[in-house]
Amino acid sequence: MAKNLTKRSEDYSKWYNELVIQADLAENSGVRGCMVIKPYGYSIWEKMQAELDRMFKETGHQNAYFPLFIPKSYFSKEASHVDGFAKECAVVTHYRLKDDGKGGVMVDPDAKLDEELIVRPTSETIIWDTYRKWIQSYRDLPLLINQWANVVRWEMRTRLFLRTTEFLWQEGHTAHATKKEAIFETEQMLGIYAEFSKNFMAMPVIKGVKTESERFAGALDTYCIEALMQDGKALQAGTSHFLGQNFAKAFDVKFTAKDGKQDYVWATSWGVSTRLMGALIMTHSDDKGLVLPPNLAPDQVVIVPIYRSDEQFEAVSKVAKEVMSELRAKGIRVKFDDRDTHKPGWKFNEYELKGVPVRLAIGPRDVENGTLEMARRDTLTKESISRNEVVEVIVPLMEEIQENLLKKAESFREENTHEVSTYEEFKEVLASKGGFIYAHWDGTNETEEKIKNETKATIRCIPLDAKEEDGVCMVTGKPSKRKALFAKAY
Amino acid sequence: MAKNLTKRSEDYSKWYNELVIQADLAENSGVRGCMVIKPYGYSIWEKMQAELDRMFKETGHQNAYFPLFIPKSYFSKEASHVDGFAKECAVVTHYRLKDDGKGGVMVDPDAKLDEELIVRPTSETIIWDTYRKWIQSYRDLPLLINQWANVVRWEMRTRLFLRTTEFLWQEGHTAHATKKEAIFETEQMLGIYAEFSKNFMAMPVIKGVKTESERFAGALDTYCIEALMQDGKALQAGTSHFLGQNFAKAFDVKFTAKDGKQDYVWATSWGVSTRLMGALIMTHSDDKGLVLPPNLAPDQVVIVPIYRSDEQFEAVSKVAKEVMSELRAKGIRVKFDDRDTHKPGWKFNEYELKGVPVRLAIGPRDVENGTLEMARRDTLTKESISRNEVVEVIVPLMEEIQENLLKKAESFREENTHEVSTYEEFKEVLASKGGFIYAHWDGTNETEEKIKNETKATIRCIPLDAKEEDGVCMVTGKPSKRKALFAKAY
Repeated sequence: MAKNLTKRSEDYSKWYNELVIQADLAENSGVRGCMVIKPYGYSIWEKMQAELDRMFKETGHQNAYFPLFIPKSYFSKEASHVDGFAKECAVVTHYRLKDDGKGGVMVDPDAKLDEELIVRPTSETIIWDTYRKWIQSYRDLPLLINQWANVVRWEMRTRLFLRTTEFLWQEGHTAHATKKEAIFETEQMLGIYAEFSKNFMAMPVIKGVKTESERFAGALDTYCIEALMQDGKALQAGTSHFLGQNFAKAFDVKFTAKDGKQDYVWATSWGVSTRLMGALIMTHSDDKGLVLPPNLAPDQVVIVPIYRSDEQFEAVSKVAKEVMSELRAKGIRVKFDDRDTHKPGWKFNEYELKGVPVRLAIGPRDVENGTLEMARRDTLTKESISRNEVVEVIVPLMEEIQENLLKKAESFREENTHEVSTYEEFKEVLASKGGFIYAHWDGTNETEEKIKNETKATIRCIPLDAKEEDGVCMVTGKPSKRKALFAKAY
Repeated sequence: MAKNLTKRSEDYSKWYNELVIQADLAENSGVRGCMVIKPYGYSIWEKMQAELDRMFKETGHQNAYFPLFIPKSYFSKEASHVDGFAKECAVVTHYRLKDDGKGGVMVDPDAKLDEELIVRPTSETIIWDTYRKWIQSYRDLPLLINQWANVVRWEMRTRLFLRTTEFLWQEGHTAHATKKEAIFETEQMLGIYAEFSKNFMAMPVIKGVKTESERFAGALDTYCIEALMQDGKALQAGTSHFLGQNFAKAFDVKFTAKDGKQDYVWATSWGVSTRLMGALIMTHSDDKGLVLPPNLAPDQVVIVPIYRSDEQFEAVSKVAKEVMSELRAKGIRVKFDDRDTHKPGWKFNEYELKGVPVRLAIGPRDVENGTLEMARRDTLTKESISRNEVVEVIVPLMEEIQENLLKKAESFREENTHEVSTYEEFKEVLASKGGFIYAHWDGTNETEEKIKNETKATIRCIPLDAKEEDGVCMVTGKPSKRKALFAKAY
């Protein structure tokens, strides 16, 4: 199958869709808006999961599992929450099928549920209904729980990884004795997401707080990390919510403090999803396909043998296997592709498409000369290296590629971050260059809405490190204390 | 909270339910038949997952993810499959809620799906619909894929871990070029389940084949592992199905062989679920609570400090922390419970209830004498050990406890396995002793059904190692070539 990838410069959106499918990451299923995550894509997600899970556990969190279904009535208990999620959820109304008498099956009308069940779009309600039973005293706090799960939001327009009806994610749900601790937790988890993005995805992010209109339904504050994609659009890559006492009040979760007084507990929730896969793809990949940072690559090195005769194959394979075990002994994930069903050229393209960080090719002449041909996916450079120095060259190279990808992404973001003072300038930069735009805003919903309607740009966040300064809103001229970060977004 | 566990001998079923809840493994949720898996229970499940996942990957399998929802029409494509699963499934009919005008929400009648979606009870249909696109030639085979997922079966009577409406499991789905390879895979995966049960759960199992009436809906053969619980009832702990070409034909999945001929591919599927948690609990636990094999225990060793003054606490803690790091350096999972909110006696009970394999207590006198008190959960024995020999004693003890639990379970099974020749004897053994009963059976559905109706015992399997011999069916006197394994079952 000849794989021709549309160029990014021609049609970024088409390039993305083709890349996801051609690199064997995911595909659309027969179920509207639901994707199949293919083994190669899933193995990258597994690496993400493993690292995040480790970071969660190191900060004292434990995993648990709560039901997929939520009784309809639970949703009504937190007023803003139901408004935010009721419009887009899958509803289970029946629990049985029966023969339709025509060789098919039909829903059995006698098997109607008394109360409909919602397939969880997020689990605050079912979890807080449970926490009421778990929390009595300060001794039960903090309660630091995470869940890896599938959730469903009935999206009208879906795109692989970026927005799908069903997606995989983790959702942390914590309960605390004080407001201060809950805010600390909210910020700590945002910090973990940012650290993961930087150190594993090689993706720089801006940490910030959402405006009121973009807040999670039921939160007092929504923190987020925002990344800039190669087409100049922003992508929200993770959120962490300070929920105040909203859910505790809705589900009556009180605790007795050390001094004997009763109070509602303070809550947070935070999550990242398979959307990170979309972010990873759009941060690094190029016209030849996926580019993976070594820290998340299922195969960090692939070895391709080049040969004509069985004899050559044996000689080449011998070296390849030795190199493979030397590298594996150093903890490097190496694949030796000795399939005789595909030619070397096909394999070269395939592993470029799949973003394997380093490719080693070995032919009969290399065996003679004690060399290998090494190709880097990030720079697309090739060089001959000595077979005896494989370990010395490859081991530090992993770190080097990881850093190079981060630097490239940081430079790209720097080049595509702008500060403007007037609305005219704002519109001009948005139309001509895109990217992140810092501008003063008067803090009102109305102005935010106006900008969104007129330009399609939204406030991504008020960055946590935004410095306090006296300014005026670019639209209304009203006073502003700090700049907001604007962009068109996914 | 005083925790009083019903004795096994009084009411086994009540003992089980209380144990699951009191040991913080799981609890019922507000959603009918769906459980909440609590952090301690989930951490055991995570250990099971990790080991199984490793074993799957070592045998060449990769993980992937397929949609939660299955279009209704997919079910009708494989005739026996729909019969087996249509009766017990959750059906999504709508995709939106709206305000009901009374402060609650209602299903929006305008948001009815054209085709209803079934929440997957198992994923053969959606996966085979996908495999049609993935498989063209022998080069694409074998396709060895596993999925970790939640599934839903609308059970009328549910019990924590053993039978719940939603449960967690893994489902392997493989495609092969030949019948022989598919049968090899089916048996290989059964072998992995048996090995896991023995080496990690310390639970001996019988490997066998199900009779026609107990076969998976759509399979040509269902292999299973059967374990004996302490109340003399059997529990099916895992199944591996040889699906023949049934799903390939239903979903039109053909491949071109090396010789250019087209044929349908051969299939298997195999799964174990959170039901293994129930099996683990019922194999080893006692009247004091859970008993965990070290290979699956979240904490293998717990250290409890005993002290009155702050000074004593410091001296005791110093030793405890040293011991903890020495043991951790050897890869042992150690918890030091230094909470001042609970007394040592409470902690002793708590860790017995939670099945921690080894408890170490350290008091001021131990600090003086250079000793620790060591208690084994499996034998409930206590002894004083030298502080300097902690590593030498504890490290091999882990293996010893693991083996002891397996031996105990094997002895129990041996004592509760019977061979009978007449139906009278069969009924008598079943009524007086229970357990596994080997008996000749004529191989017909009618006789199997009659025995089930009259005694509630079912054929658990025809054991793979059943020796060929000439016998007569205990009920009909017709000839039989090998004994079947009967038991009452969960």
